[in-house]
Amino acid sequence: MLGVCYYPEQWSQSLWREDARRMKDLGLTYVRIGEFAWSRFEPEPGVYDFAWFDESIAILGEAGLKVVIGTPTATPPKWLIDRHPEILPVDPDTGRVRGFGSRRHYDFSSDVYLRECERIVLALAERYGENPHVAGWQTDNELSCHDTTLSASPAAKTAFQAWCAARYGDLQALNTAWGNVFWSMEYRSFDEIELPVGAVTETSPAHRMAYRRFSSDQVVRFHDAQVKILRAHSPGRFVTHNFIPMNETGVDNHAVAADLDFAAYDNYPLGRTDLLMAGDDPEAFRPYMRTGHPDFGTFFFDQTRGLAPGAFWIMEQQPGPVNWANHNPRPAPGMVRLWTLEAFAHGAGVVSYFRWRQAPFAQEQMHAGLLRPDSTHAAAWPEIETVLGELATLDLEQNPTVRAKVALMVDVNAQWLGEIERQGKSYDYTHILLDHYRALRALGLDVDFVPPEGDVSGYALVVIPALSTPSAKTLANLAASGAIVVFGPRSGAKTLDVTLPEGLPPGPLRELMPIRVLSVETLRPDCSGALTWNGKAYASRCWREEVELAGEGEVLARFDEGGPAIVRSGRAVYVASLTDRDFLADFLEGLCAEAGVATQRLHKDVRVRRRGGLAFAFNYSDARTPAPAPEGADFVLGGAVIGPRDVAVWRDPS
Amino acid sequence: MLGVCYYPEQWSQSLWREDARRMKDLGLTYVRIGEFAWSRFEPEPGVYDFAWFDESIAILGEAGLKVVIGTPTATPPKWLIDRHPEILPVDPDTGRVRGFGSRRHYDFSSDVYLRECERIVLALAERYGENPHVAGWQTDNELSCHDTTLSASPAAKTAFQAWCAARYGDLQALNTAWGNVFWSMEYRSFDEIELPVGAVTETSPAHRMAYRRFSSDQVVRFHDAQVKILRAHSPGRFVTHNFIPMNETGVDNHAVAADLDFAAYDNYPLGRTDLLMAGDDPEAFRPYMRTGHPDFGTFFFDQTRGLAPGAFWIMEQQPGPVNWANHNPRPAPGMVRLWTLEAFAHGAGVVSYFRWRQAPFAQEQMHAGLLRPDSTHAAAWPEIETVLGELATLDLEQNPTVRAKVALMVDVNAQWLGEIERQGKSYDYTHILLDHYRALRALGLDVDFVPPEGDVSGYALVVIPALSTPSAKTLANLAASGAIVVFGPRSGAKTLDVTLPEGLPPGPLRELMPIRVLSVETLRPDCSGALTWNGKAYASRCWREEVELAGEGEVLARFDEGGPAIVRSGRAVYVASLTDRDFLADFLEGLCAEAGVATQRLHKDVRVRRRGGLAFAFNYSDARTPAPAPEGADFVLGGAVIGPRDVAVWRDPS
Amino acid sequence: MLGVCYYPEQWSQSLWREDARRMKDLGLTYVRIGEFAWSRFEPEPGVYDFAWFDESIAILGEAGLKVVIGTPTATPPKWLIDRHPEILPVDPDTGRVRGFGSRRHYDFSSDVYLRECERIVLALAERYGENPHVAGWQTDNELSCHDTTLSASPAAKTAFQAWCAARYGDLQALNTAWGNVFWSMEYRSFDEIELPVGAVTETSPAHRMAYRRFSSDQVVRFHDAQVKILRAHSPGRFVTHNFIPMNETGVDNHAVAADLDFAAYDNYPLGRTDLLMAGDDPEAFRPYMRTGHPDFGTFFFDQTRGLAPGAFWIMEQQPGPVNWANHNPRPAPGMVRLWTLEAFAHGAGVVSYFRWRQAPFAQEQMHAGLLRPDSTHAAAWPEIETVLGELATLDLEQNPTVRAKVALMVDVNAQWLGEIERQGKSYDYTHILLDHYRALRALGLDVDFVPPEGDVSGYALVVIPALSTPSAKTLANLAASGAIVVFGPRSGAKTLDVTLPEGLPPGPLRELMPIRVLSVETLRPDCSGALTWNGKAYASRCWREEVELAGEGEVLARFDEGGPAIVRSGRAVYVASLTDRDFLADFLEGLCAEAGVATQRLHKDVRVRRRGGLAFAFNYSDARTPAPAPEGADFVLGGAVIGPRDVAVWRDPS
Repeated sequence: MLGVCYYPEQWSQSLWREDARRMKDLGLTYVRIGEFAWSRFEPEPGVYDFAWFDESIAILGEAGLKVVIGTPTATPPKWLIDRHPEILPVDPDTGRVRGFGSRRHYDFSSDVYLRECERIVLALAERYGENPHVAGWQTDNELSCHDTTLSASPAAKTAFQAWCAARYGDLQALNTAWGNVFWSMEYRSFDEIELPVGAVTETSPAHRMAYRRFSSDQVVRFHDAQVKILRAHSPGRFVTHNFIPMNETGVDNHAVAADLDFAAYDNYPLGRTDLLMAGDDPEAFRPYMRTGHPDFGTFFFDQTRGLAPGAFWIMEQQPGPVNWANHNPRPAPGMVRLWTLEAFAHGAGVVSYFRWRQAPFAQEQMHAGLLRPDSTHAAAWPEIETVLGELATLDLEQNPTVRAKVALMVDVNAQWLGEIERQGKSYDYTHILLDHYRALRALGLDVDFVPPEGDVSGYALVVIPALSTPSAKTLANLAASGAIVVFGPRSGAKTLDVTLPEGLPPGPLRELMPIRVLSVETLRPDCSGALTWNGKAYASRCWREEVELAGEGEVLARFDEGGPAIVRSGRAVYVASLTDRDFLADFLEGLCAEAGVATQRLHKDVRVRRRGGLAFAFNYSDARTPAPAPEGADFVLGGAVIGPRDVAVWRDPS
Repeated sequence: MLGVCYYPEQWSQSLWREDARRMKDLGLTYVRIGEFAWSRFEPEPGVYDFAWFDESIAILGEAGLKVVIGTPTATPPKWLIDRHPEILPVDPDTGRVRGFGSRRHYDFSSDVYLRECERIVLALAERYGENPHVAGWQTDNELSCHDTTLSASPAAKTAFQAWCAARYGDLQALNTAWGNVFWSMEYRSFDEIELPVGAVTETSPAHRMAYRRFSSDQVVRFHDAQVKILRAHSPGRFVTHNFIPMNETGVDNHAVAADLDFAAYDNYPLGRTDLLMAGDDPEAFRPYMRTGHPDFGTFFFDQTRGLAPGAFWIMEQQPGPVNWANHNPRPAPGMVRLWTLEAFAHGAGVVSYFRWRQAPFAQEQMHAGLLRPDSTHAAAWPEIETVLGELATLDLEQNPTVRAKVALMVDVNAQWLGEIERQGKSYDYTHILLDHYRALRALGLDVDFVPPEGDVSGYALVVIPALSTPSAKTLANLAASGAIVVFGPRSGAKTLDVTLPEGLPPGPLRELMPIRVLSVETLRPDCSGALTWNGKAYASRCWREEVELAGEGEVLARFDEGGPAIVRSGRAVYVASLTDRDFLADFLEGLCAEAGVATQRLHKDVRVRRRGGLAFAFNYSDARTPAPAPEGADFVLGGAVIGPRDVAVWRDPS
Repeated sequence: MLGVCYYPEQWSQSLWREDARRMKDLGLTYVRIGEFAWSRFEPEPGVYDFAWFDESIAILGEAGLKVVIGTPTATPPKWLIDRHPEILPVDPDTGRVRGFGSRRHYDFSSDVYLRECERIVLALAERYGENPHVAGWQTDNELSCHDTTLSASPAAKTAFQAWCAARYGDLQALNTAWGNVFWSMEYRSFDEIELPVGAVTETSPAHRMAYRRFSSDQVVRFHDAQVKILRAHSPGRFVTHNFIPMNETGVDNHAVAADLDFAAYDNYPLGRTDLLMAGDDPEAFRPYMRTGHPDFGTFFFDQTRGLAPGAFWIMEQQPGPVNWANHNPRPAPGMVRLWTLEAFAHGAGVVSYFRWRQAPFAQEQMHAGLLRPDSTHAAAWPEIETVLGELATLDLEQNPTVRAKVALMVDVNAQWLGEIERQGKSYDYTHILLDHYRALRALGLDVDFVPPEGDVSGYALVVIPALSTPSAKTLANLAASGAIVVFGPRSGAKTLDVTLPEGLPPGPLRELMPIRVLSVETLRPDCSGALTWNGKAYASRCWREEVELAGEGEVLARFDEGGPAIVRSGRAVYVASLTDRDFLADFLEGLCAEAGVATQRLHKDVRVRRRGGLAFAFNYSDARTPAPAPEGADFVLGGAVIGPRDVAVWRDPS
């Protein structure tokens, strides 16, 4: 099913009915509204005006559309900020208050703001919670966007002290856990504790990790308060949230999503590709500038799918040029259709376009919609008509997403650790995760993302690029799964308080793997070393560990210096170096074969994904390319050769 | 006529008489003094000391020199700042007060400072306004230099609120005009309005544009107050201001210049070239490092000439190495003479060197003068002797500047828009303007700059790289002129409040041109597209518009994707893409031919300029190069072959 | 002798005795302790706890080790900062307070903090000053590290005003000396004087130079207060300080070291090389990424040796990967031994490793020690065993360091000038100094560093890359020495108040050299000019002076433009341009020959250094390389061919 994001408050009321009719005629099902409208819901403190919203919902509902209400808490109005300027967050890098004038100008630790949010959400939930046209709710909008998770406000400092007190109980426990003796950093009481910002040189990594965990908890606290109100007053309606790329939030997205029915993602393939490939040569970038990179969208789809049980939504889908990347090209013809089908192939339940009509004013006036500002059809319109017909053919309800054979474990602690303790300037957890993902996808594999303590039963292969602090539960799950488990370097590297584990890394991982990491070196990205596996030399990059095998185990690969580079013990494999995608593809291909997982080497611009009994193939290239389908496949869409920027779908008996 | 900048307060009084004699003997006419001497005019609050200035003027005047007094308002003294620290500006990017210790430490919105300036200017005007040696006045010095137009001070905020109230009258009008509903940015009263600084993410472009316009108006207000006093108390004397490069001020320079007799420019070819070519390869940069680029000086000369009716001045001319660019080479031998003649060719009335004697102290001690600190002749001296002789020959008074055949329209709103709403990171209005200028100059054309509502009568061709908000007056002027008018992309793109115009861009331009801009894409500079004109493919760069021809008109060129890239309707041409200088030269050459404007393709390092009955050619290269003069030309200076860094002048019958 | 840095407070008391035994068994002599332990010495305000330290010293001493106590003043505890937040420094670039949470969070101008430091140092000195196990003291730790010399605190401002009053006495003298008339920057009283920070554009160079000198004096004041207490209460013990690279402190290190017995240096070859070569191509960097660059360590050794009379120490020697560079590789096998021998060859008395055991917590947990966190031997251990045996063989006590034949004069005023008045963006005094050093070292020369007024008697050649303000004493010393003296450009360029000297540069240098510098140009590093010497063209880079020979003298080289590039008068030589190492090697080789100093062109990765009767050669390459020893040399260590990363030592009869 398809949907659209709509802002009735931005348009003359005279347009509403016609807009609703055209949405319905096009074939849309859902309409998200309300998410930035606080100044219209409550134009003066305590003075509510819901009449316009009542009517707007009625018009949409009567036209046969289902409404999703976004809570407006990403945009507190000016009067609220003027009354309570302490709501504003403080930039930890500069100490400057981040003011009114755009959006997300609030501090997750502000109790004042939390109460105000509870008040407005309650007002909406009470009024619309059982409205028959309301299908569900979106909390806030893109939590943590614009680097808002971290704040150095007085509210954040006080809350951090309380968080520390609750977590450590005893001040000496904190001093010991953090190693505060190191530079006379010891505290005598919790209210002496500072935020780890603005110091002369680097603060303790334990201190910074606590601040990251605390900040993540504050986002969860803020978010859960809304979910709780919506659950209480809107029975039978779903509650979701539209996530931005998971690595950009600085929070534990699994914790945020814990109480949601399903997660949603805002998908802007061209903007993301422009930013992610900003340092790439034009030869590398140009093929994808109007298509997006074939692995960047799905990397986030698959993560979003892993956040919550229900089929995820694309809450906002790019329909044309956007306004916020460094450069904003037009999608190549056919790409809006392709991206839409791709989302469904990866398990989406709904794809909702952002936005109905391009606004002629304010920050996003250069962001395309389905309609131009003058209400004429924008370029994406006919592609959406096409895709609606195709979706009818595919019968996706009968082809629900099933568990993949391969899981990729994503660890927010490892991401935080990599940001806090760089050790090597070019170490980047997200790029490492993406490299593993791309290698698996290039082998034609479907990939599920699982959090560290997530359910890994049923997987044949679990790939863990880095797992900084394996818990007993994680280790037990992995052992019980029967999967082959591949750990990357920096796994077991630290305790939760960012100290080296007892007996050296990989600490508790030694249950699976009798090794000790004796030392670590980091190298410039342009000065790699090598490792030899299977008689062939591969790059050993950036992060290299000196490993001692202290028990039963097999050395699968060695560094050029001679020491073990990959060690295997039973079904556990430890790769003691960062590598590259060439190595990962070769190495993981072998493990898949052993695990009975079929792989196929795909054309670099073709990607495959299965959903229920259907296999989808997406051709990102501008050339006709053979579909990676079996001989005699039964095509539901397209055929044995896929056109440029086209899609093929066949029945998959596997 | 030539002049020089002089700071008697920086030298022992014993030197003054001899200095004046040597200036006169050299052949100088004008001496600018006083511009930084506030702490000497008023060493204690309210205690004036003008005796030394009286004497200085008397000595210069008695030596036969004419004095230009600079008002000292660029350098408020310490006691004034200590008494009124609220005079200091606040950096909008950091929120930090910009303190005392250099110059320009004042806020254009400070009423306190405005009153203080009126007081000191009045004191000077009353004392020297009718002094027979005083020929004229320079207001302040290089207004807006060091990015001082924008300030985030409390004074600026209050003044901005008042400006908004005056402009919009009604708060709802402002909310509507700016589209404040977008992110609940609505205000309830004018005193709720913030400056668009320090917000979490980007503020509304309407808000930022208003802040830019307001800030420009504050500079004009500040400047006009001085002009008014000088006019009242110094009858018959000229009033001018020395501008920095127009794009660097962030103000509407035409508005600043509105009440001036003529505009002046401070010309530092090597410093400008070092900065403008800082990203260029050494092969590209080296030929110009000691000459300056042949189009960078005149680009500003021609703009300065367009600011006010009288013949412009070079108020400060670089005479040797300066101190403020990244690297500060020595001018090649002959360049000080060449630059001087070039300024006159472009219409200068006076060229005044900065400075008489190199200061041995303070910020500019590495900046050359006509004399070294020990009063010996610096390198430029003999070149100035030469040029004085040549000027006598050329009889410039009899060869006044006449209107060119080609005008380039420069639009500060388009510059602001490009800075506020980047859309494509590499979009740079000034570079676009410069590219058009360079293409025209490479065709041997004289170019006048005109503001959007300026007089365009008599031009055969008007080139408008971007005109963001065409007014009715502008359109009427263009229609009446009979000129061929070439619009670049982003013309008619916005209303004055930075919203998309009714019926899509180019809004009111549709009077001349029946097109609609359906969408815009921006591309990385290294990933251009193409357009085909006249059977040849050219680069279509950075900014590309999807255009629909909705009436009578001819498609002159098409994008590689097939849509119209250039549309013509009558004498109006719309180019829907940024291009490059190769295209511009070819395309504009054709239009010149049609318009009956003679062109000639010049050697890349040779430039031509006509003044009255004289044609000047400047050879920036280090090789002997043929003068682009007609067979049998009557040379007044030089001849048919121009030496390296040399000049030829011939009588131009055209 | 060897030592180690140890932090008993970071380990269970149960480990102390065993640690001491293992140190002794390894063969270590010295143990530095205490330097960051303020929060343990004084856990509550005024409540001292020295029992643990008493025991720690006793255990070490009884094991036969000598103790060096570091004063803990680099890490004031939280309670002290909370009581006196005015101790904190303020970042001059941002105006932000630099807070608690790491180290060095104090302002050198804080009288409160000075008193607190005197109190804690006195307490330590009284208690341990005559302890038989205590051999000496280290003041603070790495003074000025993390850019802490400059502060914009209120305390710094007040102290700066007092410093100005003391230095200039009369306000008019200051205004005149600084040239404050220039932009009406004149002050009326000392308490009007601002710090030269946060102004609109650049402040006066005189003002900034005064601030640099003042800031340096404040560090000296702070440091001397500790030395005085230690001298008074710890008779017979040495006092030293561990310096960071001299150019990074922003202070006059000779002044800091004036009252020390010897200076110490913290030597991290790989971290330094990673940072110093960060912009280099991988081909250039890779050979040294695990060895360090052959001239970067000794550049600082030789400077440290020149700071104080006694044999310098390496107080902290890198024993494995560190944690703080951009990338932190492992040392190549053998390098810890090589670096250790190299330090002794350059005159070290003791090399002390940082640190005994790798900490498993806090900021430096990724920094290697001699032991791993689990107390097993880290990689360096066997190399230290080897080096201890070799040191016994070499009998260094009998081979004390003697004065070299060549001196390099290092001038902190020239460094400050280069930072304050860049003129050419790529001008970098430290790189210029290093280039001269490298050229001399490539010729096989031993090099002493001398300060401007240092003793230069006995040198055959004194190389002075830049000496901004030659004093009468310096000139007299140089004249008396009989040495050939080579001055680089920018010598004699300024007075101490950063004004051009009377009669133009090189001011007082004209006593030795009858020249005037008429002008200066600076060039982009990729756009060099040329000079011709000895019939060959060399690069003339970045900084080029126009020189007039105004008396007796010989022009040794000319610029491509024709003017004198090198002038010689008697034994004084003036090079009027920056050049490159190729030129410097050729040119200095000739002067050495004239001065009777033997040179030899070394392999690029081999360096030689003499100590007493021994000659050491260090092979940084990974190939076997001939030792640059005479035929039939008597090898004490190694032989005629040096292995990769190996060392040879032979008896040197010279």
